[in-house]
Amino acid sequence: MSTLQVDGERLLGRLKALGEVGRDAEGRLVRLAATDADKAGRDLTAAWLAEAGLEVMVDRIGNLFGLWRPSGCAEQAALMLGSHIDTVRDGGIYDGAYGVLAGLEVIQSLMAAGFAPARPIMLVAFTNEEGARYAPDMMGSLVYAGGLAVDEALAARGEDGTVLGAELARIGYAGALEPGFVRPHAYVELHIEQGPVLEREGLPIGVVESLQGISWRRVTFTGRANHAGTTPMAMRRDAGHAAAVAIAHLRELAAASGPATVATAGTLRLEPNVINVVPRLASFTVDLRDPDDARLAAAEAALEAFLADLAEREGLSLTVEVLARFEPVVFDEAICQRIERAAEARGLAFRRMTSGAGHDAQMIARISPAAMIFVPSQGGISHNPREHTEPEQLVAGANVFLDVVAGLVSEQGD
Amino acid sequence: MSTLQVDGERLLGRLKALGEVGRDAEGRLVRLAATDADKAGRDLTAAWLAEAGLEVMVDRIGNLFGLWRPSGCAEQAALMLGSHIDTVRDGGIYDGAYGVLAGLEVIQSLMAAGFAPARPIMLVAFTNEEGARYAPDMMGSLVYAGGLAVDEALAARGEDGTVLGAELARIGYAGALEPGFVRPHAYVELHIEQGPVLEREGLPIGVVESLQGISWRRVTFTGRANHAGTTPMAMRRDAGHAAAVAIAHLRELAAASGPATVATAGTLRLEPNVINVVPRLASFTVDLRDPDDARLAAAEAALEAFLADLAEREGLSLTVEVLARFEPVVFDEAICQRIERAAEARGLAFRRMTSGAGHDAQMIARISPAAMIFVPSQGGISHNPREHTEPEQLVAGANVFLDVVAGLVSEQGD
Repeated sequence: MSTLQVDGERLLGRLKALGEVGRDAEGRLVRLAATDADKAGRDLTAAWLAEAGLEVMVDRIGNLFGLWRPSGCAEQAALMLGSHIDTVRDGGIYDGAYGVLAGLEVIQSLMAAGFAPARPIMLVAFTNEEGARYAPDMMGSLVYAGGLAVDEALAARGEDGTVLGAELARIGYAGALEPGFVRPHAYVELHIEQGPVLEREGLPIGVVESLQGISWRRVTFTGRANHAGTTPMAMRRDAGHAAAVAIAHLRELAAASGPATVATAGTLRLEPNVINVVPRLASFTVDLRDPDDARLAAAEAALEAFLADLAEREGLSLTVEVLARFEPVVFDEAICQRIERAAEARGLAFRRMTSGAGHDAQMIARISPAAMIFVPSQGGISHNPREHTEPEQLVAGANVFLDVVAGLVSEQGD
Repeated sequence: MSTLQVDGERLLGRLKALGEVGRDAEGRLVRLAATDADKAGRDLTAAWLAEAGLEVMVDRIGNLFGLWRPSGCAEQAALMLGSHIDTVRDGGIYDGAYGVLAGLEVIQSLMAAGFAPARPIMLVAFTNEEGARYAPDMMGSLVYAGGLAVDEALAARGEDGTVLGAELARIGYAGALEPGFVRPHAYVELHIEQGPVLEREGLPIGVVESLQGISWRRVTFTGRANHAGTTPMAMRRDAGHAAAVAIAHLRELAAASGPATVATAGTLRLEPNVINVVPRLASFTVDLRDPDDARLAAAEAALEAFLADLAEREGLSLTVEVLARFEPVVFDEAICQRIERAAEARGLAFRRMTSGAGHDAQMIARISPAAMIFVPSQGGISHNPREHTEPEQLVAGANVFLDVVAGLVSEQGD
């Protein structure tokens, strides 16, 4: 068993402290990417990175880095540890922040133990992982991995009308470094499961070997606004009615695809959104996921066909915009085995699993071997203030992370 | 035939001028009650009233009055002419404004002709007829008629979080007069039809003898926010899904009730309204109307039962708030006959009809004999920038209005 141990108190204290940053007037955690709340979270995190003696850097897409580059190994490719600190609206305190703060804890624990790494360790908090303000989600890691041009990402317009590049500049996190400036030796991300599997099976550790494919669309029906009292039902071109039929249909669509397919309409907007006016326009998003790419593509095609039929039947115009499309990802087998051995050595039960959520790891997997470690989420609840993982589970996960990292930076060579 | 004539050019010019007030950055007419845009529209209207020599007054609910009270008849009960100048979001220029400006035109035409009325004429622009910002709609006339306490109405909180009383004070239209300060001798309102009937039948004048009952509800489902990728479909408590099922059902509900029943979901709001989060909360409005009160009540009951079943089946909590409920109204037969005679005398074809829309006249009918005159709406389109009535139809309607008013103020006695 490893003699290394993270400082659990420090990790839990930082999680709690960061979790207090970005609360709105109702006490809800709303640390959306590149907002003032995000700036406050970034400032606190950057201060901790600097305190720990790391080189703090920011790239053009706002990814925040803390680099431990001891002399003697500076020329080696860095091991990258990362996650994100942005949240959804009214989110929990663990999603993302746990991976970043545990990464910092791992580095500080190695430092404290006098550990001499064979390569640098670069910790990253990626910009706009949640996609709650700008699409696509996992934006900072996608740009870092070369999957989206940085200028295109900076031009992203939010649901609130803001432009990401301007917002990053405004909060002081538009850095000069070109995303992808270091190609990592490997990438490891620790995260809460955000699903019910580990808790249901009583397992403290998940070894994430793959990740679902994700497909995001914005669907807009346009009809005709008219008076709700004087327009006979048969003469209406009601965009809101069509949106309701389509959203209600998503459950059947997922069921027809199979038990692994999930479909969600998370946002909806009506125009003019007035009580006594038939909606002229209805715009909503569809989030479709499946671990199997062919099945995901079939569900997407079925959705498009349903929407086109519906629009024609209702006399509406239809636009469908693909906001994001990520294929399922298979992670690096060697890193997965390393996680298994680390859990085993600490006497922690584990299982291999697929992630239902998207993570920065799936983007970095394009340019480097990558894998993820999961810890349980109580009730499977996430993106919700009741998101919770027991303190001892958080510390256990961080210790497994520590051992995996120690192993990966003990070996020479790219 | 009457020798009186309105000044059509002046009326059309004012309609156009007022229609330019309250445009947003995209050029849309958004003169919601008690906004800065509404203030600008009120200021222009009040200036015209004062120019015409009327006494300008404002009551506590912000209703704007122009009183013509020639000496000799000041003690008689006033004839009231009215409508509203607030609009829906992205509305047209005729809905409401036509009735107010034609009323002013009628008074000025009588003045110009040296007409000596046997009673005062009081023109009113009622506050918040549309209900696009504060519920219930037809608020100013409802309060004036004693159907809602003024303090309760002033405390109304808008969809935008504002409070009506504070907004009226802010824009300078919180008057001192107690609503209902004058009990009218009679009330006449001229309005565009906002429906397709007159145009389809080629008739310039509608004699409105009754008005549909209106029922407004806000329906809120509350479930559980959760991650869109990791929560199996069967484990969701998706408030947005339930709202979609309920809104899609409204069409069947109306069809089961009968061809005269209309049902509309005009507004909808999801929380947290994030693309990758299962909606925790969905809140939408239902506008139900029917000219028959028993059938309206049956449709309301059917809706409530459907919603309760749905909430139970989906494991959601449900709240249903009745925002407004107005029984169908039958207008004054003597005034209707007066309108028929006036149209006939001018050689204008007409028909008796029911109004599908709610109007201030239905409120004032509680305290005074009342009726309405309709002119055609092209394509039946209203609450829409394409709302249109031909200029000659607008002038013809105003002339019928003029003759009806002249007749009503020629007679002595209450």
